[in-house]
Amino acid sequence: MKVLIVYAHSQPSSFNGALLRTAVESLTAGGHEVKVSDLYAMGFNPVASAADFQDRRFEGHLQYDREQKHAVEHRSFSDDIQAEIDKVLWCELLILQFPLWWYSVPAIMKGWFDRVFANGLMYGQFGRFDKGGMKGKRAMVSTTTGCFPGMVEEGGVMGHLDAVLWHLQYGTLAYVGFEVLEPFVTWSVRYEDDQARALYLQGLAERLRRIDDVPLKALHPVDDFGKDWKLKPGIAARTFGHQKRPGTEPGSC
Amino acid sequence: MKVLIVYAHSQPSSFNGALLRTAVESLTAGGHEVKVSDLYAMGFNPVASAADFQDRRFEGHLQYDREQKHAVEHRSFSDDIQAEIDKVLWCELLILQFPLWWYSVPAIMKGWFDRVFANGLMYGQFGRFDKGGMKGKRAMVSTTTGCFPGMVEEGGVMGHLDAVLWHLQYGTLAYVGFEVLEPFVTWSVRYEDDQARALYLQGLAERLRRIDDVPLKALHPVDDFGKDWKLKPGIAARTFGHQKRPGTEPGSC
Repeated sequence: MKVLIVYAHSQPSSFNGALLRTAVESLTAGGHEVKVSDLYAMGFNPVASAADFQDRRFEGHLQYDREQKHAVEHRSFSDDIQAEIDKVLWCELLILQFPLWWYSVPAIMKGWFDRVFANGLMYGQFGRFDKGGMKGKRAMVSTTTGCFPGMVEEGGVMGHLDAVLWHLQYGTLAYVGFEVLEPFVTWSVRYEDDQARALYLQGLAERLRRIDDVPLKALHPVDDFGKDWKLKPGIAARTFGHQKRPGTEPGSC
Repeated sequence: MKVLIVYAHSQPSSFNGALLRTAVESLTAGGHEVKVSDLYAMGFNPVASAADFQDRRFEGHLQYDREQKHAVEHRSFSDDIQAEIDKVLWCELLILQFPLWWYSVPAIMKGWFDRVFANGLMYGQFGRFDKGGMKGKRAMVSTTTGCFPGMVEEGGVMGHLDAVLWHLQYGTLAYVGFEVLEPFVTWSVRYEDDQARALYLQGLAERLRRIDDVPLKALHPVDDFGKDWKLKPGIAARTFGHQKRPGTEPGSC
């Protein structure tokens, strides 16, 4: 399998760095081909701007997603964007390795989505979710957190992990067509000893050896939604973001 | 009232630009003091790095949040970060104006949180949420989207807006202590005519004239959570992220 790991940490000596090395070693040992986008080491520019396009469809006011569509059709992205697009198109599995900052990815990785997940290629008039451009590929979040598991379990103070990662796993990865694997999460490694950290690294290696056994996040096909953009009558919500809100159940006060 | 607007769009001629100007005009006319952080115009650097600290507590491996705490205590942040921190401390209302990209803020604004919302000041051992450092201040998201309202209503294809914005409104703004106002959202303005756009601008101006009437998002005080970090028995979830997941209700299959 072809695997792209996008990695967002400035310190090779970090636990994120150790997880990256473990992933590369485990996947390579398993006969997979691996490419890494080490965003800090590359000096990746996360700020979307007019400089991202070598040719413009519209003069004047920059309409970013419309210029993306034009750049897809004319292969006129800046070189740094095209290189990342080529890696995403090449891969069959995308792994995101990052520390969870503000319930999300570091800015350098957010900008990777902003600039690389282009309209007209990753999503577009042809569709999104199960009809998105990356249909047939899989993606997995691997993140380090400063919290404890109970904090992101049901009723936990941070909200459920499905809520924390909704924008990323659903709104970004699933949106463009990836099948999303259950995330790999490490908890408060700062407070753990070397033995506990070694167990995390073993856990990631083991998961990657059995990657085909990792469960997928539930996803409604877009045909589950009607012309009003809502789940059709009779289809029960299977995902966190589609369920009823507190206080809206029939009979609730 | 003292109002800080953080703005993330590269094009003054955009609808985001029009919303920014409308907000400044409406607030100023109402007698409020307004400061604007125009992140693109400032060339704001969103990438957290060792250069963010003029003095280091720990040599070698960069532990970002621990260095933040040290920099708060010694006022040793880089000048660009300290300037933003001073604005946040100054304001009583924080408004975020941005286009919704990947269910979130553009990278240039994500990096503003990463670098400015410092450990030891915005949150820390003293607390978070209703005990966070920004306690007593309010915050409001104002965002432009490419979708239609039904898409982010209950059962909508994007997930409910409370799920889309959970990481931002709960995991970032509420986390550091802001009371979070209902967001101001504009829908698919690209497909609207000038009259509809003018109505949006009037709507924002009117909302800011009546800012004290804008409802707050529900929030559980941290004392609602037990030592296991979960909602105490008998306390019903009032927020989207704390409710039960689909399929976990008693008696569900």
